[in-house]
Amino acid sequence: MRMYDLIEKKKHGGSLTRQELHDMVQGFVAGEIPDYQMAAMLMAVYFKGMGQEEITDLTLEMAASGDMVDLSGIQGVKVDKHSTGGVGDKTTLVIGPLVASLGVKVAKMSGRGLGHTGGTVDKLESIPGFETAIPRERFFEIVNETGIAVIGQSGNMVPADKKLYALRDVTATVDSIPLIASSIMSKKIAAGSDGIVLDVKTGSGAFMKDLEDAIALAKEMVAIGTGAGRTCCALITDMDTPLGLAVGNSLEVEEAIETLKGQGPEDLTEVCLQLAAHMLFMAGKGDVNTCYEVARKALLDGRGLKTLAAMVKAQGGDPSYILEPERFEKAACSFRVLAEEEGYITRIDTAACGIASVMLGAGRSRKEDRLDYTAGMHLYKRYGDFVAKGDVIAVLYASRKELFAEASKKLLSAYTIGKEPSEKKKLVYARVTKDQVTRF
Amino acid sequence: MRMYDLIEKKKHGGSLTRQELHDMVQGFVAGEIPDYQMAAMLMAVYFKGMGQEEITDLTLEMAASGDMVDLSGIQGVKVDKHSTGGVGDKTTLVIGPLVASLGVKVAKMSGRGLGHTGGTVDKLESIPGFETAIPRERFFEIVNETGIAVIGQSGNMVPADKKLYALRDVTATVDSIPLIASSIMSKKIAAGSDGIVLDVKTGSGAFMKDLEDAIALAKEMVAIGTGAGRTCCALITDMDTPLGLAVGNSLEVEEAIETLKGQGPEDLTEVCLQLAAHMLFMAGKGDVNTCYEVARKALLDGRGLKTLAAMVKAQGGDPSYILEPERFEKAACSFRVLAEEEGYITRIDTAACGIASVMLGAGRSRKEDRLDYTAGMHLYKRYGDFVAKGDVIAVLYASRKELFAEASKKLLSAYTIGKEPSEKKKLVYARVTKDQVTRF
Repeated sequence: MRMYDLIEKKKHGGSLTRQELHDMVQGFVAGEIPDYQMAAMLMAVYFKGMGQEEITDLTLEMAASGDMVDLSGIQGVKVDKHSTGGVGDKTTLVIGPLVASLGVKVAKMSGRGLGHTGGTVDKLESIPGFETAIPRERFFEIVNETGIAVIGQSGNMVPADKKLYALRDVTATVDSIPLIASSIMSKKIAAGSDGIVLDVKTGSGAFMKDLEDAIALAKEMVAIGTGAGRTCCALITDMDTPLGLAVGNSLEVEEAIETLKGQGPEDLTEVCLQLAAHMLFMAGKGDVNTCYEVARKALLDGRGLKTLAAMVKAQGGDPSYILEPERFEKAACSFRVLAEEEGYITRIDTAACGIASVMLGAGRSRKEDRLDYTAGMHLYKRYGDFVAKGDVIAVLYASRKELFAEASKKLLSAYTIGKEPSEKKKLVYARVTKDQVTRF
Repeated sequence: MRMYDLIEKKKHGGSLTRQELHDMVQGFVAGEIPDYQMAAMLMAVYFKGMGQEEITDLTLEMAASGDMVDLSGIQGVKVDKHSTGGVGDKTTLVIGPLVASLGVKVAKMSGRGLGHTGGTVDKLESIPGFETAIPRERFFEIVNETGIAVIGQSGNMVPADKKLYALRDVTATVDSIPLIASSIMSKKIAAGSDGIVLDVKTGSGAFMKDLEDAIALAKEMVAIGTGAGRTCCALITDMDTPLGLAVGNSLEVEEAIETLKGQGPEDLTEVCLQLAAHMLFMAGKGDVNTCYEVARKALLDGRGLKTLAAMVKAQGGDPSYILEPERFEKAACSFRVLAEEEGYITRIDTAACGIASVMLGAGRSRKEDRLDYTAGMHLYKRYGDFVAKGDVIAVLYASRKELFAEASKKLLSAYTIGKEPSEKKKLVYARVTKDQVTRF
């Protein structure tokens, strides 16, 4: 195998064989294939795409480039959930404990936030004492005991993706469906769960701004998961406005706790129930409608909250924060952002909201940035709401007052105020299974 | 300027501005833009192309990346000729002295051979004593005195092309017309001549196998040359069979000498006269037909040969080899390649002929290979000829008999023998000027 020949083949729209993809992925991880050849290949893939079998093969080769997690030590059906990232997306904190409390095992590896989107690992670490770097054996034990554990991605998982992603990031080859799908699914497959529910976000705060692109990505990922022998489905959910009212690490944990008590914001609750229902369905707990009802009842009886507290305790955190969330430290300073004109909120640039929260200290613009867990915002006015001049749109939280000027400007710029109310948005646009796309 | 943004722009089919191209070329030569970003850019250019102004701007920026030759120290009109490379192409050795003897100044920088195509510098160095590394001042002096000098490309000319070409060569991005055209023309523009005649080869021994591709490349190069303020035209000539009968360094010099005496092979003579006529025309020596007649007469009266001898002498070579070419050292061994079947030669894979001559020691498969100036072949049977079984197709020359087995097999494999004679090929398919394409 000469990498040159593979680039030439892809350039002319040819399909790479499993053996060629194996050699390419192995050679790249081993440093035998230089970045410049892989960069040319990535750009050729951007233009010529990949066939279905080819993408699945690439994904499996990427997954096999490092440690593959064997979850057979955990009893029962293991179901994973993946979100393509958004602003205020604390669904994992709600759904994970909820479905675990209903007998589905959740052995989850999560990421940190970067750019305008947050990460579950960061949010959990805002709970005092919570540990996300846990040895594999202990991780399995916790899942067996409490039904769920959430840890960071460990050392040598999917090194091919780490190296490829870093290269895509500097060569303008991120926005390619085969490359996005193989990147996400290689990590999910290496993580070892039997079932995978994908939450593909669409809208101004999502990577996929356009619904049809989101559906195409979802179809691709479901096909890969199915091809890899996993049970897999996807929901296309809205990220044209932030999900829920809280953005920021401990603020989002508090909102997740409210939601697990059945008292969360309506949009967040509904998206969580839909995703939870599909995770239960993947685990064979009945049809989706039945699973939805089971999940809804579990929110009302508080069993998910108990499971969250048990997981927090098992991972070294202080469970009293879960039961009495008012214990979370509050930010030193707060600032009210006021509406400058009257009208209906017709658009929220959700990525800009995420950037405003990064400015407040809640996220990272560079990997090495330190987080302020108390920083973030509560949104008081949302998409479709009417605001009068001077109404409080949001309250910002930060450690220093100086951070408010720029962040409040950014947040205000994210809102478009119009004369007429806009159409109500759907929370879930479509469901994608291996056989069909159902639009709602 | 962020290279990332330029890749993104090109990926979506945008045109890079002169300033952006300047920053990109300068940054790449300075090592500030890494190879992997440039590789992604090259592949994006392969797919999205470049606009006319954009290609000219890129070419000018590449030309300006190193030393630009100022030929104003040479009196009169300076006309350059460039061939896209072929097998048995010794036209420079004929045309250069011929037009110089007719008052056109030829200050030529030539390359060495690589792969199946030969290079003028190698051919000239087969003349004992001939020097192709000559200081700039002396180069100008020789041109002023004898009308012509041919040297190798000097130190820091067009470093952007050297670096870009090396990267294209390993990333499967060689075959892009904007990239080929800018590579060739950046060197021609940096070399400083007022007029440029391009000899774009087409056929089995050429880079452009297809006539329409050759015309497209010629149009692009003529447009760049014109945009850069040079007088420029192109001929599309045949390289579907080797040009002339000799392939190999001193063998080709001998054939050039025959041609300068008016006794060369018909095809070589005709292509040389056509190219010479266009060089004279570029220099304002009359219309093309008149120039053709002037050149033809000059071949018959031997003045081109005298000029070649004067140039050889000025560049340190022994001019007696030009006047008595039988003095050239002969190869130690020769081998007759015989026809294995009867019929008409309906196709010659010319690149394969070139590779056979490389196997004999006449060319390089790697840059560091040493040449055997006496090695090569004389073709006795050519495209369209009838051969009986056992007829001599060619005689091969090499320093060791062991080289003949593989080379003769390669050469035989290049010939296709058929029952019916094939159509006669044209020598010149088209002329491309800035205003029009004339097909013959």
